[in-house]
Amino acid sequence: MSSPQMYVASTTAPVNIAVIKYWGKCDTKLNLPTNSSLSVTLSQSDLRTHTTAACSPTFTENRLYLNNEPQDVSGARQQACFRELKALRKKLEDADPALPKLSEHNVHIVSENNFPTAAGLASSAAGFAALVRAIADLYELPDSPTDLSRIARQGSGSACRSLFGGYVAWEMGAAADGSDSLAVQVAEASHWPTMRAAILVVSAAKKGVSSTSGMQATVATSELFEHRAKHVVPKRMAAMKKAVLERDFESFAALTMADSNQFHAVCLDTMPPIFYLNDVSRASIRVVEEINRVAGRAVAAYTFDAGPNCVVYYEEANEALVLGALRRYTAGVAGWEAQEVAASVPEGFDVHVGESLREGVGRVILTSVGGGPVKTGESLIDAQGLPRALSK
Amino acid sequence: MSSPQMYVASTTAPVNIAVIKYWGKCDTKLNLPTNSSLSVTLSQSDLRTHTTAACSPTFTENRLYLNNEPQDVSGARQQACFRELKALRKKLEDADPALPKLSEHNVHIVSENNFPTAAGLASSAAGFAALVRAIADLYELPDSPTDLSRIARQGSGSACRSLFGGYVAWEMGAAADGSDSLAVQVAEASHWPTMRAAILVVSAAKKGVSSTSGMQATVATSELFEHRAKHVVPKRMAAMKKAVLERDFESFAALTMADSNQFHAVCLDTMPPIFYLNDVSRASIRVVEEINRVAGRAVAAYTFDAGPNCVVYYEEANEALVLGALRRYTAGVAGWEAQEVAASVPEGFDVHVGESLREGVGRVILTSVGGGPVKTGESLIDAQGLPRALSK
Repeated sequence: MSSPQMYVASTTAPVNIAVIKYWGKCDTKLNLPTNSSLSVTLSQSDLRTHTTAACSPTFTENRLYLNNEPQDVSGARQQACFRELKALRKKLEDADPALPKLSEHNVHIVSENNFPTAAGLASSAAGFAALVRAIADLYELPDSPTDLSRIARQGSGSACRSLFGGYVAWEMGAAADGSDSLAVQVAEASHWPTMRAAILVVSAAKKGVSSTSGMQATVATSELFEHRAKHVVPKRMAAMKKAVLERDFESFAALTMADSNQFHAVCLDTMPPIFYLNDVSRASIRVVEEINRVAGRAVAAYTFDAGPNCVVYYEEANEALVLGALRRYTAGVAGWEAQEVAASVPEGFDVHVGESLREGVGRVILTSVGGGPVKTGESLIDAQGLPRALSK
Repeated sequence: MSSPQMYVASTTAPVNIAVIKYWGKCDTKLNLPTNSSLSVTLSQSDLRTHTTAACSPTFTENRLYLNNEPQDVSGARQQACFRELKALRKKLEDADPALPKLSEHNVHIVSENNFPTAAGLASSAAGFAALVRAIADLYELPDSPTDLSRIARQGSGSACRSLFGGYVAWEMGAAADGSDSLAVQVAEASHWPTMRAAILVVSAAKKGVSSTSGMQATVATSELFEHRAKHVVPKRMAAMKKAVLERDFESFAALTMADSNQFHAVCLDTMPPIFYLNDVSRASIRVVEEINRVAGRAVAAYTFDAGPNCVVYYEEANEALVLGALRRYTAGVAGWEAQEVAASVPEGFDVHVGESLREGVGRVILTSVGGGPVKTGESLIDAQGLPRALSK
């Protein structure tokens, strides 16, 4: 039984994987990016953060639990999200004295991911999106996802894109206070619902350079970076939006692969150089290239975030070819159970290109484009305001 | 006994490893580069091509033997060298009718490398430099190395730098006919004789993308490449010349490492992406970074050409630290015999950074800055104008 003074709201939020990459901030405090970016939101059936937010006058401090482990909330990023959301609630309360004074209470957040954190998938985007969405629901804020993206961005840049489903742009904006650095939906998942993603999770990936410190090293030392941010990305953003709106997979693929490569190129142009791709990543690229070669056109597109895991986008119609080839190298690993696809490649496929995948991939995740955050009645918080899983 | 009509000249020529990289042509026929470059010539005791050129009215065609294997000389690159050198000889003959008419004869070239070709070290630079130098000596041309560099460049771009010892710039020039795209010596080896190089030859390196086709793919598809060529390299050329003239190793190292990284960054920004660095290369970089970290300053500099082999430049005074660390990971491989250095690292050195080197490096070559081509009486050609080694 929950205490009469406790208010609770729960949501789930998705992971997104950028196809035009965010890398570099011009304001590290406000998380203002040096260039706009664009991502595909992935289905929450496969990858999601489930978060419950609660507030109560009995809570003596703000708290956050992730997968039942208490987390530090004193960091500037968490504090910014709490502060900004409370300020919005305070405005409502000031305008309507009948509203309970939730803005005066501390907040407890309990979060769980439905995917292994060890997989090295950037989970901070889903995490901060869920946190902001859950608190906004708790506070019954009327603000739109785009309004809220301004807050989620301050938690983790790419989190702003996880407030929407489908195809999402984060427009860098121009204002010094970040008020116009916001996420907007380019298209719903239903506009292009045949988009699929296969994630090759590289086993035993060592912890590399964190994206937060890595991107600022790039801004500070890469001589190529500014050219990318100023002159290359704006063109690619326009071209990618067009590709999405026209469901033009070949253009989508060419831009996705080129932009992943360029992101890793500016990482390599950083001093000291940052390497996220390893020999397994390279073999993944070669397999995708070979798939496209035998298909006679781009039917698959690789992209890599700040780690060695390969995300392969493809359309449902080409599933047999794309997954058949990927499965041929990774048939023994977890993740293929649910998928009925033969591990096979067509005649003429050079099977030698992907041999490194055989020992390097530890798990596959098969998913698709999906929707944005979803409100849920399933609370992760018990009557004392603590993780329900711990009180069982 | 050689035929009375046969004329013979022999030379050796060195390998050079660039510290500001040549990558990209604006004229593929004339080998005109998109940017200037700068290299260190390595000692011929360790790496050299030995070449004998001969001509005789009895020779029925131009021939070239490399390591006793006949080579195709019908290619445009070889033809350009033969044609240009014969034209220079013809001018001399026209001016002095007493001279024998060597320009009317065909030429036989016999070349041998003193290093394993399997090592994947770019040997075309030494090869074409030796070819041009040997024929120029055969023809008794008065032309300077810089004059001859215009010809060697047409054989293989980087060959023009191997006509000099020490520290050598290839100035890209501006003329459409390539007449001012020439090599000049920045400093003799004796100006900064303490420069050493350790080459980590990666074992079982698969044949990658050739530099000839790779660089033109970069020119055609990399959005970052032009910025590098136009805006980054000119600054770096000036800074590198200053570093060499002032024997400023720290600046030399910073520029060398940054330029190697940027060259590989534009390779990665190519579509499809070109990867020359592998996990072993990356481990080499981490070891050099760790050497510099424990030294408190840059005492070693890595650079990579179009392959995974790491060339580490360092100064003689830091040999114990640099080679000690490299030997710690590669003690069992060929190349350490001649060097008295303990396989050890100083206290505080993180030995985990280079574990991939242990299985990935097949051989080391320990060398130093060295001189330019040297005339030799040792002929590789027998009285019939064929490789002496085959007639034994």
